[in-house]
Amino acid sequence: MRDVYVVGIGITSFTRLDYPLAEIAAYPALQAMQDAGLDKVDHVYVANMGGGRVSNQTALGSAVVDHLCLWPVGAETIENGPASGASAIKTGAMAIASGMMDTVLVTGAERMNEVNSLEATDFVATLAHPMAERIYGVTLPALAGMFTRLYMERYGVTSRHLAMVAIKNHANACLNQFAHVQNKISMDGILDGKDASHNNPVIADPLRFFDICPVSDGGAAVILASAEVAKKLGKPLVKLAGFGQATDTHAVHEREDPTALTAVRLAADKAFKMAKLKPADVDVAELHDAFTILEIAESEEVGFFEKGKGHLALERGETALNGKLPINTSGGLKARGHAVGATGIAQAHEIVLQLRGDAKKRQVKDAKVGFTCNFGGFGNNVVCLAMVRE
Amino acid sequence: MRDVYVVGIGITSFTRLDYPLAEIAAYPALQAMQDAGLDKVDHVYVANMGGGRVSNQTALGSAVVDHLCLWPVGAETIENGPASGASAIKTGAMAIASGMMDTVLVTGAERMNEVNSLEATDFVATLAHPMAERIYGVTLPALAGMFTRLYMERYGVTSRHLAMVAIKNHANACLNQFAHVQNKISMDGILDGKDASHNNPVIADPLRFFDICPVSDGGAAVILASAEVAKKLGKPLVKLAGFGQATDTHAVHEREDPTALTAVRLAADKAFKMAKLKPADVDVAELHDAFTILEIAESEEVGFFEKGKGHLALERGETALNGKLPINTSGGLKARGHAVGATGIAQAHEIVLQLRGDAKKRQVKDAKVGFTCNFGGFGNNVVCLAMVRE
Repeated sequence: MRDVYVVGIGITSFTRLDYPLAEIAAYPALQAMQDAGLDKVDHVYVANMGGGRVSNQTALGSAVVDHLCLWPVGAETIENGPASGASAIKTGAMAIASGMMDTVLVTGAERMNEVNSLEATDFVATLAHPMAERIYGVTLPALAGMFTRLYMERYGVTSRHLAMVAIKNHANACLNQFAHVQNKISMDGILDGKDASHNNPVIADPLRFFDICPVSDGGAAVILASAEVAKKLGKPLVKLAGFGQATDTHAVHEREDPTALTAVRLAADKAFKMAKLKPADVDVAELHDAFTILEIAESEEVGFFEKGKGHLALERGETALNGKLPINTSGGLKARGHAVGATGIAQAHEIVLQLRGDAKKRQVKDAKVGFTCNFGGFGNNVVCLAMVRE
Repeated sequence: MRDVYVVGIGITSFTRLDYPLAEIAAYPALQAMQDAGLDKVDHVYVANMGGGRVSNQTALGSAVVDHLCLWPVGAETIENGPASGASAIKTGAMAIASGMMDTVLVTGAERMNEVNSLEATDFVATLAHPMAERIYGVTLPALAGMFTRLYMERYGVTSRHLAMVAIKNHANACLNQFAHVQNKISMDGILDGKDASHNNPVIADPLRFFDICPVSDGGAAVILASAEVAKKLGKPLVKLAGFGQATDTHAVHEREDPTALTAVRLAADKAFKMAKLKPADVDVAELHDAFTILEIAESEEVGFFEKGKGHLALERGETALNGKLPINTSGGLKARGHAVGATGIAQAHEIVLQLRGDAKKRQVKDAKVGFTCNFGGFGNNVVCLAMVRE
């Protein structure tokens, strides 16, 4: 298959955005096209989860083409829950690999604030198994709470480790002008201090408020191109060297070991194999920390740390901005925000910034290899991407 | 790029189906896998429009993988409104063309009857331009009504021609056990007779009840494979020889000539060009007759008849089952039914049946070349497929 490069990137602030969904998708798309120096593309994929339900907008792909006056270019919406973004990038990469397309715009958007936060939780719970989970009131925070408790009992993770993820990612987000939550938090403020239990109430035991990502609106886009086109455009060459996807049982209780995120492991393995890389080659990574525990668990399953040892690496500061392997330099879902359909593309956006050396105050020195993990459902459909600066 | 074949097909009845959405997608998928003689595939694409909104089921791709116990195979939901089905087939074909996949399951499903028919019209109206159309109460039947009036004034199409489409397609559906509406209708019953105005009231002037497709639940699936796999399986070889897609302005009033379905013309041209075929080569076609006028207009835009002359060919019986170019032998959307996300795949299902010589009482003699047109929005995102029996 043909090689695929990321030649343009764009992003909106992740925050409350009172614009129509199609505009939230079109704005970063336009930025990405300007960044690439292209005024047209061969195809458009739009990543989105809630267009029909929360935004009253179906066929978002066609709407985005219209906003960008790109007719008669073809377009589809790609939906894979919270992993829609990386799924759309992977779909775009295969379109280029097929030889049918030379340039593909992949843009993602979500407007979660069309509904209130209870409705948002209800909306996201449409990911859960309808008869084995959702009907019993199991939401995504509930699944994450149970997962966290098991992880604590089995591997010695404590509430302090969870808080360390939040503190680190909030600190990173303070260096990212597009992040949703740009406020510094401390162990004193959220766990130890006298106001801590007021500031940081339990949401889904043992997960507290600061263990859970915000509900964000936002958009992010990348332009993918064939090697031939990429080399003509004269931008720093960032190759989409590998991608991998894997599914797992829909109902979490059907998994032999519910603390194993098997789909993360398999998707990462595939991405590394395709890219001819190993976890130790990675300089910077964006993991899907919708809940703080997930950053720890994913950092193990993708192969950065041994199973059950991720929280120790975190404690030693290895995943901090100045550590050996900085994770979630953007602030992650936890603090950059989680605009569902856009999230996987925002992860790729951050990696491209880092590999280009354009990440400013949060730049990881000499970053050459980047990695993303975009986690769909409760780990039942995961897409990983490996990118390399050439 | 690598050649792509359709090696398996499956379909449910198009009717009211009181099963969960994922089951409606999984059932024809299983049939298609059995038909192909495969117990696994490399990837799954699910075509669906209303999962999140009307069925409370997002990430349907993952749910279908789970129903079929296909983990860890990757999956996405592909949404392009009423053209989701053909979009998913096209996406699957590119995955095979890329060399990344050898077999892809493409299944589509919709459960429209989760909502009542007013809500269904409201749901489908989420396809319309939110600020230029939907906010003013413009629904899809309204757009089709205005389109029909213009077509009547400009080309001499009459209500009798519209009724001829319905009568023909109901007759075809009577030969299709999976069709939603298997009742014979007559000019006397729906236009001329004394009960006609009772039987066939105006819905969106000049469109009457029998000019509009039913609201159906249903599922349909195909398995796509590389030439190498297809030749090993020993099924009749049906090649997906060409596919084409094109978009148009979102708001219909922005088109220079609102009676021109430019995206249909461009998508068909691309599909024919890729297949190295011309319209005159086609033996059997499925066109997107969500409204009777669309069969007439599309039969012109795809190149079967001159612009403004489609209704004359219809009148001469050329598009009847025993005519020169039978159109909608399945009964079409009008009578087989329109289960939105499944429709484009049901069209392909019919063509494969015909090209295999398996269409029984509605078999078109010596059919070697088939064609489908799947119409998204009000013609703002169209996907055409050309298939050839080798």
